Formats: sequence, structure tokens, C-alpha cells
Amino acid sequence: MPILVVEDNADQWLIIRSALAQCFPEVEPIWVNNPMQALKYLESCLSDETKLPRLILLDLYLPRREDSWILLEAIKSNSVYRQVPIVVLSGSQDHDDVVKSYTFSIASYIVKPITYHQWLTCFYTFRRYWWESVTLPQRSLKSSV
Amino acid sequence: MPILVVEDNADQWLIIRSALAQCFPEVEPIWVNNPMQALKYLESCLSDETKLPRLILLDLYLPRREDSWILLEAIKSNSVYRQVPIVVLSGSQDHDDVVKSYTFSIASYIVKPITYHQWLTCFYTFRRYWWESVTLPQRSLKSSV
Repeated sequence: MPILVVEDNADQWLIIRSALAQCFPEVEPIWVNNPMQALKYLESCLSDETKLPRLILLDLYLPRREDSWILLEAIKSNSVYRQVPIVVLSGSQDHDDVVKSYTFSIASYIVKPITYHQWLTCFYTFRRYWWESVTLPQRSLKSSV
Repeated sequence: MPILVVEDNADQWLIIRSALAQCFPEVEPIWVNNPMQALKYLESCLSDETKLPRLILLDLYLPRREDSWILLEAIKSNSVYRQVPIVVLSGSQDHDDVVKSYTFSIASYIVKPITYHQWLTCFYTFRRYWWESVTLPQRSLKSSV
């Protein structure tokens, strides 16, 4: 059950990887650090269904603000990729960033926690919601039904 | 903080209203029982920002399968409405319904609980995620930023 993590800050990635390992031990997170790599990974899923992520955790400002919107636009305009819920995990609490992200039909916007303990609390809630309450799409390459 | 509930079964609505009242006492849920009413309510939000729902809980088969897709299409093609995360709450566990719903960029798909106790557990998790972890858009009529 892969989760794709788009994060351009290596230190942040280490924290996310560690917290994910603790809260989602069965998950192998895939790290990409820029939009081009993210799209390259998603393209590779078209020929190998098992690689399609269950969720995408997306940082904003990669590194420019526009880079995130371009990536969101590309994902949401593809009938296969757009089946994958996107959770924005951003340090920004800027109202415009929140609204603009939801305009791209992201699933949720989460402001990054500060302490490691807060990251764990966040990901435990995350697990309880996404893994235990929600039904996610099965691995499928169907673009429409 | 309104939540819009689109549910065509009055008995199901009574259960949802009761469980919401227990888990989200500060929320006044707005009930509509068909897609036309849902769109009429959303249209009324364009002239009164305070009415824009924080979340939409959407049943499928209203009553036909196509009715839900038409409603999702209408919501997602409007730059204001599509800012509101949609959580599908459906009795259907059909794989095609799950995949097709995510293709419309819903936030999450939840299979309806059976017992009232399960509804409460579901909505407590729901509250913890959407109210305590996620940042939702503020009431705003901006269509893009």
C-alpha cells in the first residue's frame, strides 16, 4: 500500500518518514522532492497498477507557490491519477493557500505539526480516519466506470 | 458551521441527524433529499457566504446511480462549490461506485455504518479528523486566488 510523499525539504522528509514508520508500519512511503519526479512516478504507475499510491501527501511551495498548483492541475486533469486522494501537508497557514488548494479538489489541507509528538498524534488520527473509516479505491487502472 | 447532508432516505437522515447532534453539537446540519435541492441550496450560498457548508455528506443513488454523478459533476464544475470537501456516505460497497466517486475528486468514501453505535464511532473519528486535524477553507466566495 504505497503512499506518495512530495516534499522538497530533506529534514521534513526524515520526520515524516519516521512518523509514518511508527503509525503506518505496513506502508512503504515513496519520496519525491519535486513536481517533475512526482509526475514521473505517477506515469510509471500506468504500466504497473500495484505502484499506484493509496494517498498523496503533498507539500506546497516546491519551491515556488506556482509549482504546487501546476502539479495539482496535472494530477487532477488525469483520469487515473485523480482517483488518488491528495492531502496537502504544508507549513503555510495562509488563507489563500488553503482556499486555492481546495479549489483543486484536494481531499484535505493539514498544517504541518511542529513537534515530533504532534506529528505522531496527527498521523494516528490520520490512520484512524483513512485506514479504518474510509474506503479507498482498490488498485485499478480504470479511468471511468 | 453548516454541514450539507444530501440523503434521500428519511429514516437514514434521522439516524445521521441524531449521530451528528451527539458528535457535532455546534453544527446545524442542512438536509436536502435530492440533487436539485442540493444545487438550489448551494446557489443560495453565492449571495450569502455564511451559508456555504464546511462539508458535504453525499449519499449515492438519489435515487438512480446517474443522479449522484450529475450532482458531483455540477458541484465540481463550479469554482466556488468545489472548494467544499465532499464525503460520500453510501450503503454501496460496490467497487465501481467507489472508484467512480473518487474519479470526481471526492475527499473520501465511507461505507455507511450499520448500528447506531457504529455511526457514533464513525462520526467521532470524523470529528477528530475534520475538526481537529484538518484546516478547512474559511467562508469565502473567492473562486480563485
